[in-house]
Amino acid sequence: MELHIITTGGTIDKTYFDAKSDYQVGAPVIGEMLDALGVHFPYTVESAMRKDSLDMDDSDREKIRACVNRCDEAHVLITHGTDGMVTTGKALQNIDNKIIVLTGALQPAAFRNSDAVFNIGCAIGALQRASPGVYIAVNGRVFDIDNVQKNVAKNRFEALISRTA
Amino acid sequence: MELHIITTGGTIDKTYFDAKSDYQVGAPVIGEMLDALGVHFPYTVESAMRKDSLDMDDSDREKIRACVNRCDEAHVLITHGTDGMVTTGKALQNIDNKIIVLTGALQPAAFRNSDAVFNIGCAIGALQRASPGVYIAVNGRVFDIDNVQKNVAKNRFEALISRTA
Amino acid sequence: MELHIITTGGTIDKTYFDAKSDYQVGAPVIGEMLDALGVHFPYTVESAMRKDSLDMDDSDREKIRACVNRCDEAHVLITHGTDGMVTTGKALQNIDNKIIVLTGALQPAAFRNSDAVFNIGCAIGALQRASPGVYIAVNGRVFDIDNVQKNVAKNRFEALISRTA
Amino acid sequence: MELHIITTGGTIDKTYFDAKSDYQVGAPVIGEMLDALGVHFPYTVESAMRKDSLDMDDSDREKIRACVNRCDEAHVLITHGTDGMVTTGKALQNIDNKIIVLTGALQPAAFRNSDAVFNIGCAIGALQRASPGVYIAVNGRVFDIDNVQKNVAKNRFEALISRTA
Repeated sequence: MELHIITTGGTIDKTYFDAKSDYQVGAPVIGEMLDALGVHFPYTVESAMRKDSLDMDDSDREKIRACVNRCDEAHVLITHGTDGMVTTGKALQNIDNKIIVLTGALQPAAFRNSDAVFNIGCAIGALQRASPGVYIAVNGRVFDIDNVQKNVAKNRFEALISRTA
Repeated sequence: MELHIITTGGTIDKTYFDAKSDYQVGAPVIGEMLDALGVHFPYTVESAMRKDSLDMDDSDREKIRACVNRCDEAHVLITHGTDGMVTTGKALQNIDNKIIVLTGALQPAAFRNSDAVFNIGCAIGALQRASPGVYIAVNGRVFDIDNVQKNVAKNRFEALISRTA
Repeated sequence: MELHIITTGGTIDKTYFDAKSDYQVGAPVIGEMLDALGVHFPYTVESAMRKDSLDMDDSDREKIRACVNRCDEAHVLITHGTDGMVTTGKALQNIDNKIIVLTGALQPAAFRNSDAVFNIGCAIGALQRASPGVYIAVNGRVFDIDNVQKNVAKNRFEALISRTA
Repeated sequence: MELHIITTGGTIDKTYFDAKSDYQVGAPVIGEMLDALGVHFPYTVESAMRKDSLDMDDSDREKIRACVNRCDEAHVLITHGTDGMVTTGKALQNIDNKIIVLTGALQPAAFRNSDAVFNIGCAIGALQRASPGVYIAVNGRVFDIDNVQKNVAKNRFEALISRTA
C-alpha cells in the first residue's frame, strides 16, 4: 500500500501552550507517530489546514476534496476533528478508485491515555482491506460514510442502521 | 461486529517480575486495553495459553484451531508471539466463514513506546473489511497468510511477493 | 514523614474536555499518582480550589495560608499553577515549624511527556531534608522562596542570586 | 547544584531485546530522561558498569567508590539495582564533603507505569537539601544509609528504626 495522509487539525493534534496558558491545534502528530512505530509502507503527509472541525466551512471541505483528487495514491487517510468528520466525509463521496478513511481522536495524541494511536491503527488496517469508497474509523469501528453519525451526548460514533459488521 | 479474542502469550503480554528479577509472559493485556479505549463493539476474551511462540508445538496450534472452530463469532482476533505467528496462521486455514486476524507486538504492551496498541488497532480495522480467511497484521501492514514471513534480521514482517495492497 | 497535600489547580491538573472542545483545570491528579507509585508514607489531600494561578487573588492566598496553618502535619506539599507560585509562596512565609514546598508542572500530568511526576518527586525529596521554611521545586531545582522568580520568556524558574546549591 | 551522576545498571535500565527474546540491562536512561525534562542545573553522567545488583561484588563497589572520590562535584546521584543498593551505599560512607544519594526503580524506566522518573526526582530534591552523607531515595522516602533495608517480601524499602522524617 502507498498511503497519502492529509491532516486537517482536530483534537488529535491539540496541544498545550503554557506561554499562552491555552490549548490549540499544533503541528500534525501523525508523521512522527508512524516513524516511531516503524511502519513498513511508503507514505506522504500533507497538511491541508489546522482547524477545529467546528470551525470548518464548505471552502475547507472543497480544499480537502481537491487534495484527495490531486494525489496519486489510491489509499488516503485523513486526520480530522470528530465533530465535523461525517460532514467532510460526505463531501468526499464519488471520487473514483480511491479508498478514503477519516479518523481522529477524542483525546489529543499528546495525552498519555489518548485513543489516537489505536484509531490511526484501525484506519490503516481498514484501508488495506476496504473497497473504494469513504469510511470513518473511530471507537474501534469502521463505518461506511452513509451509515454513521456522531452521538454527541455519549461522545462516540454510531451506525444509523445496524449491519453485520 | 461481534469479536472473539483468543490470547496465546507472546511479547505483547510480557511483563517484568521484580521479585524474580525476570521477564515473563503475564496476564493478557488486551481486555483492559480495549476497555480503556472505550471501543463500541461487543467482544469476548479467551486465554488459550501463555506461551512464548518459540515454545509452541503442533498440539498448541491444534488447541488454538479448536478455540476458533468452537466460538460462535465470525470475527476472530488472536494475539500471539511474533516468531511463530505465520506457522500458527497456516494451521488456521480452511475454516469456513471466519475472518481471522493474528497480531502481536515487537515491544511489550507494558512499554511506553510499544507497538501493541497500534497493531491491535490495525487488526481490528482489517477484521471489519476483510473477506473470510486468515491474515497477519503487524508493522502497519495486513498480510494474507499465504504471502507473509518474518524477516528476523530486520525484525519485521514482509510479503513474499509484492502485491497492490 | 506525614505529609499534607493542598491542591490549588494550575497546569498540572489541566485536562481536555472534548464535549466543550476546551481545556480546563480538572480533578487533582496527585492522589491517584501517589497511589499508583505505591509511596510508603502517610499523606492526606485537601483541594483548596481549582484555579489557573493567573486568576488568583489575595483572598485565595489567604485561604491557602489558612489551610497550611490548620493542618497538623509539619510537612506540606502544595500543587499550584506556575505563574503565581512565587507570589503564593511569599504569602506563606513565617509559619513556624512547617516545611512547605510548592510545585507544579509546565505540561499537564495528563500529557505523556509531562514534568509533573518528576517535579512532585523532587518536591517530596526536598521535603524530607529541608529545614522549616518555604520552597519551590520545579525544573529539578529546589529554591528558597526569597531567591526565585519565574523567567516567563524561557518558561522556567531561576534563582535571583546564584548560590552553592 | 552541579551534579555528577554515576550509573551502574539495575532494573531501572533494563530493556527488552526482541531479537534475543530476552530482557537485559541496556544503555543508561537517565541522561535522556533529564534532557527531556529540561532540568536547569549542570550535570555529568558516567557509566561505571551495567550490572544487575545481585551480580555485584566488592570490586564493583570499590569501583563505584573510586568514581565518587574522583569526581569534582559535591553532589552525586547513583542509579543502581535495588537488591544491592544498601550494601553499595554502606561502602560509600565516610567520604568527606559529598552528598551522595542512591536511587533506582522497581519497574524499568522503559515501562509506561515505571517509578523511575518519580524516584529520580525524589533523589534530586533530596540532594539539594541534605547534609553531606549517604542516602537512599526509593518509594518516595529518603533514608539515611545507616537506617534502611529492603523488605524483599513487600518489595519496598523501610527504615530500621522509625524516626520523625
